Amino acid sequence: MSSFDFSFSSKARRIKEPPISALMRWAVEEKDLISLAAGLVDYESLPAEESLTVLREILEDRKKAPLVLQYGTNEGLLALREHILSRWHRREGIGPSFSGLSTRNVVITTGSQQLLYLVAEALLDPGDIVIIGAPSYFVFMGALESAGAQTLSVPLDARGLRTDILAEKLEGLKKEGNLSRLKMIYVASYYQNPTGISLIPERRRELVDVVRRLRAEQPILILEDAAYRELRYEEEEAPSIKALDEGNKLVAMAGTFSKAFAPGIRTGYAFLPDPLVEPILNLKANHDFGSANINQHLVLSALESGLYDKHLKALRARYKEKRDAMLEALEKNLSDRAQWEVPGGGLYVWVSFPAEIETGPESLLFQKAKEKGMLYVPGEFAYGPDVEPLPKNHIRLSFGSPTTGEIREGVRRLSLALDEVPSKKKAGKKVAARRS
Amino acid sequence: MSSFDFSFSSKARRIKEPPISALMRWAVEEKDLISLAAGLVDYESLPAEESLTVLREILEDRKKAPLVLQYGTNEGLLALREHILSRWHRREGIGPSFSGLSTRNVVITTGSQQLLYLVAEALLDPGDIVIIGAPSYFVFMGALESAGAQTLSVPLDARGLRTDILAEKLEGLKKEGNLSRLKMIYVASYYQNPTGISLIPERRRELVDVVRRLRAEQPILILEDAAYRELRYEEEEAPSIKALDEGNKLVAMAGTFSKAFAPGIRTGYAFLPDPLVEPILNLKANHDFGSANINQHLVLSALESGLYDKHLKALRARYKEKRDAMLEALEKNLSDRAQWEVPGGGLYVWVSFPAEIETGPESLLFQKAKEKGMLYVPGEFAYGPDVEPLPKNHIRLSFGSPTTGEIREGVRRLSLALDEVPSKKKAGKKVAARRS
Repeated sequence: MSSFDFSFSSKARRIKEPPISALMRWAVEEKDLISLAAGLVDYESLPAEESLTVLREILEDRKKAPLVLQYGTNEGLLALREHILSRWHRREGIGPSFSGLSTRNVVITTGSQQLLYLVAEALLDPGDIVIIGAPSYFVFMGALESAGAQTLSVPLDARGLRTDILAEKLEGLKKEGNLSRLKMIYVASYYQNPTGISLIPERRRELVDVVRRLRAEQPILILEDAAYRELRYEEEEAPSIKALDEGNKLVAMAGTFSKAFAPGIRTGYAFLPDPLVEPILNLKANHDFGSANINQHLVLSALESGLYDKHLKALRARYKEKRDAMLEALEKNLSDRAQWEVPGGGLYVWVSFPAEIETGPESLLFQKAKEKGMLYVPGEFAYGPDVEPLPKNHIRLSFGSPTTGEIREGVRRLSLALDEVPSKKKAGKKVAARRS
Repeated sequence: MSSFDFSFSSKARRIKEPPISALMRWAVEEKDLISLAAGLVDYESLPAEESLTVLREILEDRKKAPLVLQYGTNEGLLALREHILSRWHRREGIGPSFSGLSTRNVVITTGSQQLLYLVAEALLDPGDIVIIGAPSYFVFMGALESAGAQTLSVPLDARGLRTDILAEKLEGLKKEGNLSRLKMIYVASYYQNPTGISLIPERRRELVDVVRRLRAEQPILILEDAAYRELRYEEEEAPSIKALDEGNKLVAMAGTFSKAFAPGIRTGYAFLPDPLVEPILNLKANHDFGSANINQHLVLSALESGLYDKHLKALRARYKEKRDAMLEALEKNLSDRAQWEVPGGGLYVWVSFPAEIETGPESLLFQKAKEKGMLYVPGEFAYGPDVEPLPKNHIRLSFGSPTTGEIREGVRRLSLALDEVPSKKKAGKKVAARRS
C-alpha cells in the first residue's frame, strides 16, 4: 500500500479480492460470453408475480404497511421465525422437545452468507482451526482467511465429506495437542457448492456422533450450510444434520430463501444453539441491527399464502430440465475426456479432467474457453490453502442462470476449447455417481 | 460463560448487549408505555403508497423484474450509485473534478450502520484510537468496543464538536507519541443522535483543515455520519464535511434512506476515498456479497420518479410539527427544571437536568418515569468509557415515532416523574440554543 493509504486493520490486510470477482467482471464486459460460472439463479422463473401479489397485500393494508416499512428487530420478524421453525419441525418429523429449538434460537439474516460470516466472527481468532471439505464453498473460505483461521481440509467423495478421514484428523489434532484450536466443522450438507454432492444420512450421523463424543474435551460447532436444500430434483430427502442434533447442542444451521425464492430479497435464517444466540445477535446489532423488514414480510406472506410452495414445485421441474440439459451436453461432448458427478439437486456440476489438464485462470483451457466465449469456475478456487498439491484439473459448471440453449452451447464451446489443449492420454469413462 | 459454551473469539467476548436492547424489550412488554426512547420513524407518514407504486412498475415490467429479484452486485446497483452521486454533487454545488468522486467510490450498504461497521472493521485493531463526540451515537460505540478500540472523547457544544479541543487532543497524542494509534474521527454532522446538534460550517472547515495538516504524519480518516441530513426543519443547510474534502482524500461519508424514506428497506450508501474502496468491498463480499437488490431498485425508482422528493417535503413538515409539539410540552412542563437545545432537524431533543438529578437505568427518575408510563434514553449511554466523571443528568427524547398527542403526554409523565425526585435546588432557565 502506498504512503497515502490509511493504516488498515490486520483483518483488512489479510483479506484478498474474492477470486470469483474477476470472473464476474469478464462476464459483464464480454457480452456474448456464455457464463456457466456464476452462481446466479434462473431468471425466467423468478417470482415477480408472486412477489407483487404479496407486496400489494402488505402495502395496501393500512395497518400492516407502516409496520413493514418501519425498522424491524435485530433478530428478525417473529412470525417469520415461527413459520420457518414449525415448517422445519414438520419436515423433519420432530418436535421442539427433541430439537431443543424455540423461536429464540432462530435469527433472520441478510442471506445465509451473513450467518456464515457472523458465526466465523463469533468463534474465530487468528490461528484457530476450521475443518472444511475439499472442495468447499470458496466465498466462506475468504471469510475464514480474513479471520486469520487455518483450514484443515477433509476430502469429499460422491457421498459427501469423508467422515472416516474426519475422525482421523480429529484424532491427529488431539495427539498434537491442537484440539483446543479447532472451533468448527463447516459442512454444506445438500448439493454442495461447488460439487453438487450431498452428505449421505449415515455420514450425517457419524459426523454428529464424533463431535458429540468430543464435547467434554472441546465444544466444536458443526456449521451446517443448507442453502441448496430446497433445490432437490430426486425424490428422497435426507434429514438435515441439525435434525440429528438432539437438544440443540452441536449444530448451527444456515438456510436461505435466495435459491428457492429470490436472491434479490437477501433473506436467510439460522438455527443456533443457545450459547451462540447472544453473541451472534450482539454482533448483528453492530453490523446492521436487523435485515430489511419488508423483505421478511414478503417471504412470510409468500410462505403463508402457499405461493412459495407452488413456486418451488415449478422451480424444481425447471431446474431438473436444465440439469439434464447440462448432463446430456456433457455426455455428448466430453464423455471420453472427463468425469462428473450427477447432482441430485442444486445448481452445479463438478467436472474432472485428467490430471494433466489444468483449468486455472492462467491455464490454456481457461484462455481457450474464454476465446470460444464460455466461462467456468476453476476448481482450484474451492480448495483450502492446506491442500497440497492443489488439484488443478476440476471445474465447476453452473446451470442456474443460463437457458437450456446456452447450457448446451456453453458445454459445446468448452469441448472446443478442450480440443485445443494437448492431452497425454484419454481419460477413463465418465462415472455417473448417484447418491445412495 | 459455562463449561458447555463454545470458545468464542476475543471480539465476541469483548462485545456487550447494546444498552438500548433492554429499553426496547420494555417498550414491547408494557403496552401502554409511551416510548420517547426509540429511534424509530413516524409511522403514519411511511411511504406505503409510493413504495407500492414503484414496486408495481418494477415487478410488472417483464424485463426488469427478473433483474431486480436476482442477485445484485456487491457494491450495489450502478444506476442508484450514479443517481446518489449526481444528486449530491448538485446539492453541494460541486463537481467530480473538485470532489474526486466517481461511482467507483460509492457503495450501497444495509443501512448506514453497515458502513460504520465496515469502516471500523477495515481500520481498527485492538488498542487503536478513535475520536468521538461527547455525547456520541451509542450504537457505533458498541462496534468500536467490540473492535477493541479506545475512544477519545471531544465535547460538543450547541455548535457541534469542539474543534478547538479536538486540535488540543491531537497535539496531545502527538506529544505522547500516540498519533500513529489514531485511526479515525467519527462525526455525526447533522442533527446528531443523541443531541440533535449539527456541526457549524466554520468547524467543518477547521476539522478538515486539521486532519489535512496531519496527513503527512498520520493519515486519519474522518468518518462523517450524515444519516439525519434530509430531516431538516429550518431553511439553511450546511455543506457536508465530505463536500469540503477536495480530491476525496480524508472523509468517508455514510448516508441512508432509512430516515427520509423507510427504515424497513435498510438501504444506505457511502462515499469512500480510493484506498478504502477495495478493503470495504472485500469485507462486504464476505459479509453478504451485496445488500438486497429489490430494495435498491425501489429507492432508485422513487428517486427517479420524484416520489422521493415529494415525500420528503411532506415528511419535513410533519416532523417539524412533532418537534414543535415536544418543545412546547417541555416549555410547559419543565421550563424551570431543565435545559435543552432546539434541534434544527433530526428526531431528538437532548434534555439536561441539574447535576444532582440522575437519569440512568437504575435511577429514581428512570423508575418513576417507567411507573408513570414513559420511557427515555438515559444520556449516560452516549458517552465513551474515557469520559470521567460520567455525566448522569441528561436524557434523549425522540419525537420520531410517537404522535403529537403521545409526545405531549409523554413529556407530561416525565415531569410527573421528576416531581417525585428530590432536587437540591431549582435549575436555571432553559437555554434555547439555535445553531448559527
